[in-house]
Amino acid sequence: MADYSRRGVLQGIGAGLASTALVNGARAQAAQPRKLGYAIVGLGSYATKQIMPQFRNCEHARLIALVSGTPEKLERYGAEYNVPKTHRYSYTDYDKIRNNPDIDVVYVVLPNSMHAEYSIRASRAGKHVMCEKPMAVSVAECEAMIAAARAANRKLMIGYRCHFEQHNLRAIELVKTGFVGRPTLITAEHGFYAQPGQWRLNRPMSGGGSLMDIGIYSLNAARYLSGEEPVELVSTEYTDRSDPRFRNVEDRIDFQLKFPSGVIANCVSSYSSNHNGFRVTGTKGWVGMEPATPYDGHRLFTRSGGDTEQVQLPPPRKNQFVAQLDHLPESVLTGIPLRASGEEGLRDMRLIEAIYRSARERRAVSLV
Amino acid sequence: MADYSRRGVLQGIGAGLASTALVNGARAQAAQPRKLGYAIVGLGSYATKQIMPQFRNCEHARLIALVSGTPEKLERYGAEYNVPKTHRYSYTDYDKIRNNPDIDVVYVVLPNSMHAEYSIRASRAGKHVMCEKPMAVSVAECEAMIAAARAANRKLMIGYRCHFEQHNLRAIELVKTGFVGRPTLITAEHGFYAQPGQWRLNRPMSGGGSLMDIGIYSLNAARYLSGEEPVELVSTEYTDRSDPRFRNVEDRIDFQLKFPSGVIANCVSSYSSNHNGFRVTGTKGWVGMEPATPYDGHRLFTRSGGDTEQVQLPPPRKNQFVAQLDHLPESVLTGIPLRASGEEGLRDMRLIEAIYRSARERRAVSLV
Repeated sequence: MADYSRRGVLQGIGAGLASTALVNGARAQAAQPRKLGYAIVGLGSYATKQIMPQFRNCEHARLIALVSGTPEKLERYGAEYNVPKTHRYSYTDYDKIRNNPDIDVVYVVLPNSMHAEYSIRASRAGKHVMCEKPMAVSVAECEAMIAAARAANRKLMIGYRCHFEQHNLRAIELVKTGFVGRPTLITAEHGFYAQPGQWRLNRPMSGGGSLMDIGIYSLNAARYLSGEEPVELVSTEYTDRSDPRFRNVEDRIDFQLKFPSGVIANCVSSYSSNHNGFRVTGTKGWVGMEPATPYDGHRLFTRSGGDTEQVQLPPPRKNQFVAQLDHLPESVLTGIPLRASGEEGLRDMRLIEAIYRSARERRAVSLV
Repeated sequence: MADYSRRGVLQGIGAGLASTALVNGARAQAAQPRKLGYAIVGLGSYATKQIMPQFRNCEHARLIALVSGTPEKLERYGAEYNVPKTHRYSYTDYDKIRNNPDIDVVYVVLPNSMHAEYSIRASRAGKHVMCEKPMAVSVAECEAMIAAARAANRKLMIGYRCHFEQHNLRAIELVKTGFVGRPTLITAEHGFYAQPGQWRLNRPMSGGGSLMDIGIYSLNAARYLSGEEPVELVSTEYTDRSDPRFRNVEDRIDFQLKFPSGVIANCVSSYSSNHNGFRVTGTKGWVGMEPATPYDGHRLFTRSGGDTEQVQLPPPRKNQFVAQLDHLPESVLTGIPLRASGEEGLRDMRLIEAIYRSARERRAVSLV
């Protein structure tokens, strides 16, 4: 599952491709936590409202550079986060990040169709890459991103924040340790009402509709909850093409995944109604969350022997955003395997393409 | 939706096929509520534990006869319910019900594969028929049952008790009156762990697995909650054939129904885990039940504007069993349309056959 073996990482660092500071950090495992420098690429609302405020709580990550096509945003957020003018880049200047040793990691938070290009250019500039999900808009792009990171001997991580969220992790653990008995069914439902006029409704930017946006949470949850890869899927799409929001992207696309152990996942992806939950049911009970994948306010429930209980967890040491931002540096510094690698993003993209194909061809698609 | 027009019913009664008592009742609409006499065919646990105890609360139905292949059961329940020996029948004697004018309605509570035969023989004996769901084990059988009832000018009703359950009715009403906005998604999940050795696991008796038993609740709920008939479906089956329970019936078969308005229903049917719920989500919120279709203990929830609330309903005047038992007599006596006619059962059976076909052929099945 890891992108790199520990030896590979250390060899990569030893090969002088990393900044001197990074090599020192890797050698010393210092008493003072080493922080890698992040460049944020794309200053939309997710980057500015959700991600950037989290760096202050990170142990191993710091916000060191910004990339945006809007000078006003560079000015505003540069000032707010004390990013020196030398560390603010336009897209024209983007490749110059190569010459900035303070930048260890490039975090791509652009519209989906730009993920591949900006990730690959970051890899080629010798940087580790964190890229938002969906990883890209096609399997071919994902493969090119993985190849570019590998060629540069740099890490590539996809922003699956739920892999770092404690309620989700507890749900996974409960399933894995047998709380539900033998799992038989997963339901995973994600949707929201997409307001008109956003880039997500414009296929050249988004690469697709709800599935490429919110539906990937259902897909990824089905995989991490089952701990398996599906062997077959079917899907059903419904899109009202008279709705101006849906001129070139899909509204709803629901899919069933069949896993080798026999678990079936019924998954929802919608741009017309609010859904945020999952449940794993087995022979002895179930584990579920609702909401399952919000920014905060997660609620975890279990049912066994007729009693439904809410599982209360103590506040985490690191929230999902902080844990995610710290994880890539930890992997760089210590060689621990990445929890959400480029291969993970590629697996979802292969399934996304198959889900679209199933809906289009109105038939089951075999995945083995 | 009605099996018979009011005129048709009265003509049927006038034609002398009904008992004299019934004709008197229909004419008088008496101050004293008129009760039609039921014969229960098949004294298994559902008949003896759930249905028969309900007659004491009925206004228009009384238990007047029993049919069983087990003399001990006839003796035991005959004594318990004061059914005279002249009104107790073996299967060999079954057609003699024709000569018993106290029997107005025959309620068929036999294994699925016997529904068609015993319903048709009851129609031919000039009796109204209530038949448990699934109506039969094939579309052809359902059509024969409808034809037999029509030829005898008698009513045929299918035991869809949820059509008489107040929380389900309130959920339907909430959806219909716009509580959820425009509905987009229905989830409907039904399952239980089928213990080995029951007739339901023996295809010659059951006609199929979980779908013919508990899955029909998901299917029927998707239809009554949407108020539409599906135009397309896909399904996924998983059955562990090494499990001795599943030598000739399916375990899990989950299906997606697409309705003309664009609602998609994700439905679950399982013999390996417990599920009992549904939810209708729309542009403004959702309405859901869990459990949705038990014998009692229903719980109805709504969500709108971020608040989930449980809807508390006052105790009903008639529970679902009583309301169902009274409904067929009411329809006979007053000519009101049947709420759950043979045509309703046939519609589900057509879909059940299509769901099996979709799983077998691994493709979507068009229903229009």
